[in-house]
Amino acid sequence: MPEIDLTQATNFDLWKHSYAARAENLAVSEVRALFSVVSRPEVVSLAGGMPDVSALDGDLIEKAFQSMMATRGNYALQYGGGQGDPRLREQIQEIMALEGVHGSVEDIMITTGSQHALELISDLFLDQGDVVLVEAPSYVGAVGIFRHKEAHIEHVFTDDQGISPEALREAAERLIETGHKVKMLYLVPNFANPSGVTLTAERRVEVLKICRELGILIVEDNPYGQLYFGQEPPKAIRSLDDQGVVYLGSFSKIFSPGLRVGYVLAPPAIREKLVLANESAILSPATFAQMLVSEYLAISDWQGQIATYRDLYKTKRDAALSAVQQYLPKVHTTRPDGGFFLWLTLPEGLNSKDMLPLAVTELVAYTPGTAFYGDGRGANNIRVCFSHPTAENVAVGIKRLSNVINQQIELNETFGSGS
Amino acid sequence: MPEIDLTQATNFDLWKHSYAARAENLAVSEVRALFSVVSRPEVVSLAGGMPDVSALDGDLIEKAFQSMMATRGNYALQYGGGQGDPRLREQIQEIMALEGVHGSVEDIMITTGSQHALELISDLFLDQGDVVLVEAPSYVGAVGIFRHKEAHIEHVFTDDQGISPEALREAAERLIETGHKVKMLYLVPNFANPSGVTLTAERRVEVLKICRELGILIVEDNPYGQLYFGQEPPKAIRSLDDQGVVYLGSFSKIFSPGLRVGYVLAPPAIREKLVLANESAILSPATFAQMLVSEYLAISDWQGQIATYRDLYKTKRDAALSAVQQYLPKVHTTRPDGGFFLWLTLPEGLNSKDMLPLAVTELVAYTPGTAFYGDGRGANNIRVCFSHPTAENVAVGIKRLSNVINQQIELNETFGSGS
Repeated sequence: MPEIDLTQATNFDLWKHSYAARAENLAVSEVRALFSVVSRPEVVSLAGGMPDVSALDGDLIEKAFQSMMATRGNYALQYGGGQGDPRLREQIQEIMALEGVHGSVEDIMITTGSQHALELISDLFLDQGDVVLVEAPSYVGAVGIFRHKEAHIEHVFTDDQGISPEALREAAERLIETGHKVKMLYLVPNFANPSGVTLTAERRVEVLKICRELGILIVEDNPYGQLYFGQEPPKAIRSLDDQGVVYLGSFSKIFSPGLRVGYVLAPPAIREKLVLANESAILSPATFAQMLVSEYLAISDWQGQIATYRDLYKTKRDAALSAVQQYLPKVHTTRPDGGFFLWLTLPEGLNSKDMLPLAVTELVAYTPGTAFYGDGRGANNIRVCFSHPTAENVAVGIKRLSNVINQQIELNETFGSGS
Repeated sequence: MPEIDLTQATNFDLWKHSYAARAENLAVSEVRALFSVVSRPEVVSLAGGMPDVSALDGDLIEKAFQSMMATRGNYALQYGGGQGDPRLREQIQEIMALEGVHGSVEDIMITTGSQHALELISDLFLDQGDVVLVEAPSYVGAVGIFRHKEAHIEHVFTDDQGISPEALREAAERLIETGHKVKMLYLVPNFANPSGVTLTAERRVEVLKICRELGILIVEDNPYGQLYFGQEPPKAIRSLDDQGVVYLGSFSKIFSPGLRVGYVLAPPAIREKLVLANESAILSPATFAQMLVSEYLAISDWQGQIATYRDLYKTKRDAALSAVQQYLPKVHTTRPDGGFFLWLTLPEGLNSKDMLPLAVTELVAYTPGTAFYGDGRGANNIRVCFSHPTAENVAVGIKRLSNVINQQIELNETFGSGS
């Protein structure tokens, strides 16, 4: 009689035969595995893309709450419509206009963070094997959704001016010619997650032209557009075309992610289907959170709050870039003009995923580059998120990181990368 | 040259060729079409299943908010973990124990209302053509999700003691024998939506036995269990089996639906996948709403609030039953011992969907029975929701409804149902 494998017995899954095919594609994200590490106070986390909500004014949130309860308390506590609150949608019009985006209140839908907007859009468009074109690297949460939908994720060459129009055309035409359905281009044109790069105005026009010509829907995800450190970024792609672009926005980075309030602006026929999908998935977006955001926008200097965030993150970005220059001379970094992230490229042969446990013993955490690719690339990349720790701790974290990286570089130079 | 059809031009969908196959199954729910009607103050709505949140104590919610902001404000405003707050999960253990359900904090996950729990479970298990067994009638939101997943929805005969074990076995065996994958049984055992009936203790044991034997997962949805008007309902099916049952609960009916906080308790292997799916869909459930519920539970007499709801809904149920007896002598009604709903059966030949516009001119709204079937049945049924209007208005609404129904009965008796 064979010995009983207790590990197997404990993990026994009575329902293993019963899962849907798509369940195979639910992978543990590389960011998620870090959660337990990140929460230890002695670790400087450059991992999760969290805003610094300590810069919010608690009194204003309290005032917004009180005003909401006094004027619309029972409304806030009740179910709402699947599309979201009309007043909040009007306020969102105002916010989108800051980036040149104009759309009807009827075509805006509120979502449970913009992540859920992307989930609903992907569910609406992606059959198994359909192609999604994305930046190289691309947002980890988007890669996860596309993988879950069993889509083919095609990374398109991206440099410090954003996604390359030439490479985009080449990839799209090649895939269409070989019989693939290229359904959408997903991109974060401003201060991208994870690269920090911004798509130039010229390239926005070219990208739009290519997608129009080839019948590819553009999903423009813009959580960071207002968090610029110098000049404003170019106007949104959606400002150039109201039929070929689905536009995603969020209150997570300009206000608070704990409320989970995002939004999507879509052409009418798509929006109509998205509302049905939203209702099917959650009945209605949380009225309470929507009302609180709406009151906050109504009574506060919310643009002043965004300016506060800008100054804060600029200081942290500066700290991050100085520290990289000082402690990581052999590492390439992007130089973002806004947002939350640096994208580091280590010398060939280094593996950022293998290095992570070493980094954690040095009390620093980050996200390995492979998380941002659907095809295994990114092994010698690291995403550094500078938004959450203090500027001082950003520098401390990068110094700690350099202990690991520089030692690995030295080892590789001495013994070769195969060692 | 043919004339241009302007209607068609306005509804033109540039992306019609591009949708996924499953998008075909996004139907406008019959409840949703009523939203604009229901919001008119002169209409008595017996339609949407909304709690009477005016019975909540606003001061307590304010105290919960202040305590939360003082002690854990920055936590509430930040992203959280995909599984939800550990303290709230402990409090949920206490709530579930009221119905005999005991499970590890590790196996509870917080969701955006229990609707999203059902969406995630369905996405995890249902491939196209897989069978879901449901009550006859079944919850409209569940029918919508299963249809969206392209599942085969099989309604099993249900009487005033709940779903019939004999019919369940017959349907399951027949479908398995004909090569179908029967993946799950979905049911609302206590004061069901829409029928109001409760599954007897004896039948719970039998249903569980059948599902165990045939390898069918039970999804037990229990939003109304604590809203009993006399005796407590039998213990949950989950109290009898921790491996074959996924258990759903919600704060929507015992506290507030505007916060969108529900939960699921699942066997470890399923729970693990559900957490990944939750993270993929929304990153993390709203920390703010979770903290507010958690503080509310910590500082308030929440069981007292549930008792208040019980008394209130019992009064409304009594008003509804008296009014049906008085004004609708030829209509059969279920006699629920808890929850929100009566299920009316009109004489053969009447069509509740066709009657709805007439009802609206009489200033009353309801949900037609067909909404609760995936197969077109329910044409002579009506769901009456008595939870939201005042008891007086419940009676007024049913009297208005009787004007339409009794006139239709008379017409049918005079001219025959084919007229």
